[in-house]
Amino acid sequence: MDTLYGELNPPARILLGPGPSMAHPRVLRAMATPLLGHLDPAFLQIMDETMDMLRRVFQTENAMTFPMPGTGSAGMEACLANLIEPGDRVVVVVNGYFGERLCDMAARHGAEVARVDVAWGQAVDPAAAEAALAKGRTKLLAMVHAETSTGVCQPVEPIAAACRRHGALLVVDTVTSLATTPVAVDAWGADAVYSCSQKGLSCPPGLSPVTFSERAGAVVRARKAPVQCWYLDVSLLARYWTPERLYHHTAPITMFYALREGLRLVLEEGLEARWRRTETMSRALAAGLEAMGLTRYADAGCRLPSLTTANIPHGVSDADLRKALLTEFNIEIAGGLGPAKGKIWRIGLLGESATRANVLLLLSALESLLARQGARCAPGAGVAAAQQAFSAAA
Amino acid sequence: MDTLYGELNPPARILLGPGPSMAHPRVLRAMATPLLGHLDPAFLQIMDETMDMLRRVFQTENAMTFPMPGTGSAGMEACLANLIEPGDRVVVVVNGYFGERLCDMAARHGAEVARVDVAWGQAVDPAAAEAALAKGRTKLLAMVHAETSTGVCQPVEPIAAACRRHGALLVVDTVTSLATTPVAVDAWGADAVYSCSQKGLSCPPGLSPVTFSERAGAVVRARKAPVQCWYLDVSLLARYWTPERLYHHTAPITMFYALREGLRLVLEEGLEARWRRTETMSRALAAGLEAMGLTRYADAGCRLPSLTTANIPHGVSDADLRKALLTEFNIEIAGGLGPAKGKIWRIGLLGESATRANVLLLLSALESLLARQGARCAPGAGVAAAQQAFSAAA
Repeated sequence: MDTLYGELNPPARILLGPGPSMAHPRVLRAMATPLLGHLDPAFLQIMDETMDMLRRVFQTENAMTFPMPGTGSAGMEACLANLIEPGDRVVVVVNGYFGERLCDMAARHGAEVARVDVAWGQAVDPAAAEAALAKGRTKLLAMVHAETSTGVCQPVEPIAAACRRHGALLVVDTVTSLATTPVAVDAWGADAVYSCSQKGLSCPPGLSPVTFSERAGAVVRARKAPVQCWYLDVSLLARYWTPERLYHHTAPITMFYALREGLRLVLEEGLEARWRRTETMSRALAAGLEAMGLTRYADAGCRLPSLTTANIPHGVSDADLRKALLTEFNIEIAGGLGPAKGKIWRIGLLGESATRANVLLLLSALESLLARQGARCAPGAGVAAAQQAFSAAA
Repeated sequence: MDTLYGELNPPARILLGPGPSMAHPRVLRAMATPLLGHLDPAFLQIMDETMDMLRRVFQTENAMTFPMPGTGSAGMEACLANLIEPGDRVVVVVNGYFGERLCDMAARHGAEVARVDVAWGQAVDPAAAEAALAKGRTKLLAMVHAETSTGVCQPVEPIAAACRRHGALLVVDTVTSLATTPVAVDAWGADAVYSCSQKGLSCPPGLSPVTFSERAGAVVRARKAPVQCWYLDVSLLARYWTPERLYHHTAPITMFYALREGLRLVLEEGLEARWRRTETMSRALAAGLEAMGLTRYADAGCRLPSLTTANIPHGVSDADLRKALLTEFNIEIAGGLGPAKGKIWRIGLLGESATRANVLLLLSALESLLARQGARCAPGAGVAAAQQAFSAAA
């Protein structure tokens, strides 16, 4: 017999990066439930309940609302791949890594991509998006509501209004916003919106909830050629998610158990309460970081509550600090992507991870590690400022 | 507060369909483990261990051996999408539903598809495959080793030899064969092989192990245009699975916990022992079905041990019997797909589902339900024949 690996025994991390977030024990236990078949009536009921709860969380009445059998990127690509046909003009708002990814994917699916660029860390001026829409007949505009690479929240409403004026479909990435800050698909008038099972919903990564408006559904049905990617073809998937129950793929049963439990937890807490909790934790974290002398990366006025970005103080080693935070304190935060690599930290307050204790643990650990690297910071200042913010919010 | 759904409380099914199979309690418990980040060194180690164990199970030394972040169909499409460029000639061996799916996907990715058809329930004559290869310069031949819709095992070796003679890459579907019957990627000389986390590996559905030969890797690197589907682009994925650890998607952490534990169980039992167990269970099931007067669907000489197909006796209602089997006896088997719908039953003996008790439970339940529908069958004959087969094997 070959050498085997030992029992699974990972360290117990406090996950404060941009995802995955921590899962509630009820979600973890749900996944230990024995399997059902993907066409079992008991499983079909779980699918229906999941769709219903997803609609409430997305704040939509869209019939086509279900999780894609892949991670958030699968949902992103499903929205683009199903709506774009070769030669279509697509406007993409780019102010971070995931805006870049939208451009990459849209181009792969044959779109003529018109970019609306702004520096990382800033929100795009809706007038710039409208100007891009005005330059040619546009099939769709794609934008990231919550840019995971920068911590910027891009307001959807003014861009949605511009899309309506120019007859363009609107695709919105809510990967880092869903169930952490208001996402209102129907009120926005968005046509295709995707998110993920991790982060705000606090389930493990692996599913990507998507929702398509009636208008988007009609565009998919009117395609000249089938979507090239069979796995992401929502016209096939929709037939499994409706009473026809046509076999497409074998659903990831256990991930659905997790998602159903995660959605129950979100709705038990209540969407508004969850947004408020995220906001409270985020304010306390920000107060703590600022008291420790750290400056923010994302522009004031467009900062996400679910993801805080801070500039790494001059002279501090990103790699050393994050390594010590992980190996000594069991806390995960993330560094920057692309042009922000080595320059910023990204701290997520997502779902179950967004607790008062986690904010305080992070601030105290960060303080001791910054001191070790010679950064000047008054002892206890970060934690004290956060505690004060919590008291003010109570 | 809106009405919420109750706790997850599914019935305890005995899963004897073509998948998902039942998961070992150790796999279920592994999934209740708190999450790690997808770039945590502890998680990267889990990835490396998983790759190593997957290579052993596929019997390959291919460096590019990792699970795609989707179900088996995602692996199928990844193999085709990455190797096919528009205009490539692709030969597909079609003797069932999944052969048809290969044709559909290959055509979507721009291939000129040449089909080698044979009736469902039969294996293809390798000479017919070779004749198709001889008709034009062929980029690749795709075939299904274990056709889940018919229960046919298509021998790979002679077709692999024909591919070598004609300079075509060989893509093999081992979704229903891996870890149930010999799959020997390197000995076959196959270039791209995919499977799934469920069925033989007995983990929940949601991951699709794939393996690419050096030759296939070179073909992917030499592509003129990137793969249209970003999510399935193995040249990007490979950079996450190698020391570069380039971020692509957020890995489905919990599914990896499951797969690692499932692979440990396979290697603890031993591949040969697992194949023998599947064979023993399958023979006993077949003996039982035949003693009850049921005839087989797949041709003798090309029958899979992991999936048994039986013709539904005249006068018996497929829907009524399977519904009673599920709701009264908690046993799932599957009906036929496509032209076999309503005509056959498909009984899986996959991974943890393939036990002596499950074979006997199914045969006894089937006997009572067939009797209820008026089918003639000597009482106890099925169970007795299966017991005899078990004794003979012991």
